Amino acid sequence: MVTLEELKAVFKPKLKPIIWREDSLDLLDQSALPFQTTYITVKTPEEVAKAIKLMQVRGAPAIGITAGYGMVLALISTKPNTLNEAIEELVKAKQIMDQARPTAVNLSWATSRMLNFAKKKIEEGEAKSVSELIQLMKEEANRIYEEELEAELKIGMYGLEKISDGDTILTQCNAGGLATGTGLGTALAPVKLAHYLGMKVSVIAPETRPWLQGSRLTVYELMAEGIQVTLITDTAVGLVIYKNMVNSVMVGADRILKDGHVFNKIGTFKEAVISHELGIPFYALAPSSSFDLKSKVDEIKIEERDPNEVRTIRGIPIVPENVKVYNPVFDVTPPKYITALITEKGVIYPPFEKNIPKIIGL
Amino acid sequence: MVTLEELKAVFKPKLKPIIWREDSLDLLDQSALPFQTTYITVKTPEEVAKAIKLMQVRGAPAIGITAGYGMVLALISTKPNTLNEAIEELVKAKQIMDQARPTAVNLSWATSRMLNFAKKKIEEGEAKSVSELIQLMKEEANRIYEEELEAELKIGMYGLEKISDGDTILTQCNAGGLATGTGLGTALAPVKLAHYLGMKVSVIAPETRPWLQGSRLTVYELMAEGIQVTLITDTAVGLVIYKNMVNSVMVGADRILKDGHVFNKIGTFKEAVISHELGIPFYALAPSSSFDLKSKVDEIKIEERDPNEVRTIRGIPIVPENVKVYNPVFDVTPPKYITALITEKGVIYPPFEKNIPKIIGL
Repeated sequence: MVTLEELKAVFKPKLKPIIWREDSLDLLDQSALPFQTTYITVKTPEEVAKAIKLMQVRGAPAIGITAGYGMVLALISTKPNTLNEAIEELVKAKQIMDQARPTAVNLSWATSRMLNFAKKKIEEGEAKSVSELIQLMKEEANRIYEEELEAELKIGMYGLEKISDGDTILTQCNAGGLATGTGLGTALAPVKLAHYLGMKVSVIAPETRPWLQGSRLTVYELMAEGIQVTLITDTAVGLVIYKNMVNSVMVGADRILKDGHVFNKIGTFKEAVISHELGIPFYALAPSSSFDLKSKVDEIKIEERDPNEVRTIRGIPIVPENVKVYNPVFDVTPPKYITALITEKGVIYPPFEKNIPKIIGL
Repeated sequence: MVTLEELKAVFKPKLKPIIWREDSLDLLDQSALPFQTTYITVKTPEEVAKAIKLMQVRGAPAIGITAGYGMVLALISTKPNTLNEAIEELVKAKQIMDQARPTAVNLSWATSRMLNFAKKKIEEGEAKSVSELIQLMKEEANRIYEEELEAELKIGMYGLEKISDGDTILTQCNAGGLATGTGLGTALAPVKLAHYLGMKVSVIAPETRPWLQGSRLTVYELMAEGIQVTLITDTAVGLVIYKNMVNSVMVGADRILKDGHVFNKIGTFKEAVISHELGIPFYALAPSSSFDLKSKVDEIKIEERDPNEVRTIRGIPIVPENVKVYNPVFDVTPPKYITALITEKGVIYPPFEKNIPKIIGL
């Protein structure tokens, strides 16, 4: 098995969605993808909030990392004279950024973590001046980034065990390095690391209607790294499995229950059923923070989004606007169709009810 | 069981794709759907050829019916003086129309049938004048239409046995009355007839990328008849079956082999596997002319179309143009996933290898 240290050494992504410049932050403008690769530079919490609001930065972990650095920018841009003034600026910055996308849990998690960290360092006497505080805050923001990257490298490390040289992996949606901000990702981590290790691997990416995360993001980020990727429509998922064009399926997961039910982007379930039926392994890859060990499957409401996402494509109407639409965002895959769950804590095999608590904790 | 006569009596479609006006033909302009319902009037074989070329009329049976009437228009528009001149005009008209879409088998089949019919009627002395010939040709063109409609009514009659009041049917692509020209269709025939008989039925239509036949055609033609229809993305097919929103699946078929393998629009296979796995009946509906009792499954090449169909939607690019694309038009569904095949000659159950020749003929 390849070690974490070896993977850290080879992971040199060409695509870096978030670049910290010590007094500013460069963000890959995801709203312009896949046609333009442009970065915007942000220097204040207001500019960070605007970038989040405009979806220039998106994806839960990426938003968390960005907000962490945003708290550092709050101090650099306002130059408070005292530690008390510094805390006031951080409280203000947290408010400004948290409002940018109120439903993004990682956003308020990161700003809270940074604010509490500052208070603690002042209280403990480690930060005796504003400049000392800024230095410590930079380190903490880097830690948020490093922790995220390390979890993804470990997911990739365990996932690598499931990939052989020459393999083609079918994915779904975009569980890649754009969404996580590290350039690595979760479901795409094993493929990317295999590529950096010199293996020949390729990906089949379904376009993933209605948002087209597959065609707009997955294809973009794999091409940026020089990894071979083929785009298909969501209708062609069955045929590529049937024609033995796929060695395994690797998808992300938004929520995994204690009994192994996986909630993920709409379309995941069909890949699981077909691959199970035709004997192709199906893996869901996610950090342990995605596990929900309390809820039962029937308690989770499947979110529905605006019908106009289906009635239009990139703003162009494709059906009359009075057409009735059902537009669920997620689907649920029962455990019987899942070969294994791959987390930063290890690979979890069935029976999930027994093995998830063992590996993830109770 | 409802009789064919009863069905003929209730079948009063609001949407008529082809209307014969005795000296001209009105064609619903399918290239303007679903946003505009406009008819074009054609009076010559040249105009018919243009309408076929511009995809204003499309769908194999619809093209056949149109070309049949086009041969009548050849005589009406040129007013030949002798029966010999009439045959010359028919030969010319056939050439003009056949070239409009050389791969459409129904097109040359219909023009050949009409030409041979004219020759025979002259030879047998039944058409003694041009006006007598025109009258007989009108009747023959009507027969092409009536035979098509009768086959669809019978498919609907057998399919109705599989529908209960209150049912929701999942379909795929558009196997409806737009493609066949009659306003009824194959896969949609049972649902439509159930509706005309006063049953409460509804349809879930996946959009069917890349061509969006589901959102553009199926939704349009069901709404035109007042039948409740819900549009979903192709990614949501699994979830609607999983959530018990579907009582059965009814799709068309482009080609059915002797052992029961069904070739149909890309995306059909996934519906078959998932419905089979979750215990929902899956039916393929097609006329006996779609059966290919000679070929083996491996002999049928899956046609691939222009990658730009996937790279764009209604002409709008959604990915960079250098993206590698796999764009198969059809997929193949093995017989084990098919509950029954529904044809105008009756319902065929497994074992197909034994029962298809029995019902379709050898």
